[in-house]
Amino acid sequence: VNPAPASMAMAEKGNHRHFMQKEIYEQPEVVGRTLSAYVDAEAGRIRPVEGIDFAGMSRLLVVGCGTASYAGLIAEYWFEAMAGLPVDNDIASEFRYRDPAFLPGDAALFISQSGETADTLEALRLCKAAGLKTIALVNTPHSSMAREADVVVPTLAGPEVGVASTKAFTCQLAALASLAVLAASQRGKLSPEAVEAEVASLMAIPAQMNAALAIEQEIDQLATELAHASIVLYLGRNVFFPLALEGALKLKEISYIHAEGYAAGELKHGPIALIEDDVAVVAIAPHDALFAKTRSSIQEVRARGARVIAITDKAGADELDSEASAILKLPDVKGLAAPIVAATAVQLLAYYVAVHKGTDVDQPRNLAKSVTVE
Amino acid sequence: VNPAPASMAMAEKGNHRHFMQKEIYEQPEVVGRTLSAYVDAEAGRIRPVEGIDFAGMSRLLVVGCGTASYAGLIAEYWFEAMAGLPVDNDIASEFRYRDPAFLPGDAALFISQSGETADTLEALRLCKAAGLKTIALVNTPHSSMAREADVVVPTLAGPEVGVASTKAFTCQLAALASLAVLAASQRGKLSPEAVEAEVASLMAIPAQMNAALAIEQEIDQLATELAHASIVLYLGRNVFFPLALEGALKLKEISYIHAEGYAAGELKHGPIALIEDDVAVVAIAPHDALFAKTRSSIQEVRARGARVIAITDKAGADELDSEASAILKLPDVKGLAAPIVAATAVQLLAYYVAVHKGTDVDQPRNLAKSVTVE
Repeated sequence: VNPAPASMAMAEKGNHRHFMQKEIYEQPEVVGRTLSAYVDAEAGRIRPVEGIDFAGMSRLLVVGCGTASYAGLIAEYWFEAMAGLPVDNDIASEFRYRDPAFLPGDAALFISQSGETADTLEALRLCKAAGLKTIALVNTPHSSMAREADVVVPTLAGPEVGVASTKAFTCQLAALASLAVLAASQRGKLSPEAVEAEVASLMAIPAQMNAALAIEQEIDQLATELAHASIVLYLGRNVFFPLALEGALKLKEISYIHAEGYAAGELKHGPIALIEDDVAVVAIAPHDALFAKTRSSIQEVRARGARVIAITDKAGADELDSEASAILKLPDVKGLAAPIVAATAVQLLAYYVAVHKGTDVDQPRNLAKSVTVE
Repeated sequence: VNPAPASMAMAEKGNHRHFMQKEIYEQPEVVGRTLSAYVDAEAGRIRPVEGIDFAGMSRLLVVGCGTASYAGLIAEYWFEAMAGLPVDNDIASEFRYRDPAFLPGDAALFISQSGETADTLEALRLCKAAGLKTIALVNTPHSSMAREADVVVPTLAGPEVGVASTKAFTCQLAALASLAVLAASQRGKLSPEAVEAEVASLMAIPAQMNAALAIEQEIDQLATELAHASIVLYLGRNVFFPLALEGALKLKEISYIHAEGYAAGELKHGPIALIEDDVAVVAIAPHDALFAKTRSSIQEVRARGARVIAITDKAGADELDSEASAILKLPDVKGLAAPIVAATAVQLLAYYVAVHKGTDVDQPRNLAKSVTVE
C-alpha cells in the first residue's frame, strides 16, 4: 500500500519523473500481457473461462468503486450491445446497503485493482451469500476477493504504485473487452469469423496505445493552459461517457481542479448553465456513429465561451478544425479498442496538468492507494 | 414552453418573488393531489393501475433525462428493496443509442415533466418497437409520451413555469413511491397491514413537506454564505445519493456555482482530494441506518477544511452538533417519505443561493424548460 522508500522508488521509476507517468507508459505492454491471458490469437478466439457460462446467464451485475466502477460502466455498453447480456452496474458502497433484487441466473462481477477494496469485498460476500455466481476481476492474485470469489479473472498490470489508477484501469478494460467477445460468442451473437475479427482488433491495441502515447508533447503544451482552469467539464457519449467520468476523476485526484464528467446528451438538462469563459470542456469525440451529436455539444459550449479541447481522430479533427479550441488527434481506432486507446489521452492530460500545477502526482493529498476501510 | 407575459406572470406568482419559489411552496398541495390519484386512503391500499402487472414483470427499465432521471434513480432503491423488482436506470440520450439488452418480461418506464423530452420519447419508441410494455410518467396528459405509451401514470403538479424543475420532481417521487408500494403488494413482499402502514406514511407527506418548508429563513441565511463558495459537493447515501445529484444540479442550473453530487462512500475514491478551505459540502444525512457512515464522511471533509452544511433531522442534529458547520433540521421522517420531504431543503438552498447571487432564477442562462430537440 505504501510506496517504496525514496531511493528504491527512484530506481524503479526509470526515466520517468513519477510512477504515474511510468505506469501510463507501461500500458501497451501490460495491456498486451493481460490480453494474452484471454485471447488465443492463433486460433482467433477467446479462451473459455472455467466456471463462467455466459450463455446460461440472465444478467451480469457489475460492482466496483471509483475508477474500477467506470471500467464496469464501459463494459456494460459492450456486454449489452455485443452479447445481448443485460448488465446492472453499481457503486459498491451503494450496492451493499440497498438490498438489491436478483433474478434467477444472475451472476456478479467485482472489479478491484487491489482485490481488497472494503465495499467491493463486502458486495461480493453479499452476492455469494445470496447464491449468485461471483467473479473477481483483480490485479492481485492472492487478495481476499481472489480467494473468496467463485471465479477469478486476472488483470496482469503488475504492481501499481501511483495512487491514481492508470494501467490497472486499461487492463481491466482489456479483460472486460475479451470477456464481452467471449460472451457474444457463447450467446450466439457473433459468428466465429466475427470473433476472429474482434480478436484481431484486440491484439492491435498495444501498438495503437503506443501510437496514442506519442502525442505526449502536445498534451504537455495544452496542459500548461488547462492548469489555470477553475472548472473542467468532460463530455462523451456511449463508452466515452464513462471515460469522461474517468478523465474528470483523474484530473480531480491529482490536480485538485474541479472536473466533472457528463453524458454529452445531458448537457442541455442543466450543466450548460455553468458554461462561461473560465470553463474548459474536454470532449471525447472520435469520428464514430455519434460524432455528429457530440460535435453539436462542442458547438453549443463554444458558442457560450468555453474553451474546448477535443480528443478525436483524423476524420474528427478534420471536421472539428475550426470548432474546437485545441485538438488531440488519436490513432484511428474503432470498436472495443477505442476507449482503451483514448484512455491514455485523458490520463496524460491529467498528469501534465498536475505536473504544471506542481502537485504531488503519485501521492495526492487525502487519498490512499487501496481503500480497505469503508 | 415560454413563460407567460410579465404582467400575467406577476399576477400568477402571487406573493412569491419567482415562479420557482411559488412552485416549491405548492409542493405540499400538488404532491397531495398526485398521491390521491394513486392512494385509496380509506381502503388503506394503492389502487391497481390498469395495464400494469408488477407480479409478472421480470425487470423494470427506468429512463429519463436530468431531474427526471434522478427521480428514477431514487425509485430504483424503492422497487428493488421493497418489491424485489430489479430496476435498470439509464439516461435517455445514452439508452437510445446503446443497443440495450432486454429480458422476457421487461417493462419500461419513462419519466418526463413535459412528456415531450426528445431523447426520452425516442427511448420510449425504441422499447415499444422491441415489444416491451411502455409506461409514461408525465405531467402533461396530452403529450406525445402520454399518447404513445401503453400505460400513462400521471403527476398532477400543474403547469411548471420555472425552468429548474421542483414540484414536478417531488410529484414524480410521490407517484413512484405509490407504484413501489403497489409493486411490493402485487409481488407478495408486503402484507395488507404493511401496505396500510405505507399508505398512512405516504398520506402524511404533504404535512411533513409543509413543516420542512418552515426552515426557509434559516436556509436564506445559510445561502448568503454559500453564494460565495466556488465549489459545492453534495453527499448522500442510498436514496439521498440521487437527491445529492439533484441538489447539485439545482444549484448549477440557477446559481451557476459548480456543484457535484456524490455517493458518500465514493468520497475516498477520488473526490476527497478536492477538499480544501473554499469547498463547501452539503451532506444529506438523516438519522437512518446509514447515518453513522455519512457522519464519518462529514468528519473527514471537515478535518480537511471544508465547510459542511448537514441536512438532517432532530436525532441527527443532536449528534452532528459540533461536527457540521451548519445544520438544517428537517421533520423526523423515515421510509419512502424521507427523500420527498428532504427535496424541499435542497431546492430552497439552491433557490436562495441564486437569489443572493442575483441570477435570473426562473430563466437561467442557456437553459430551456423542455428539451424537445436532441
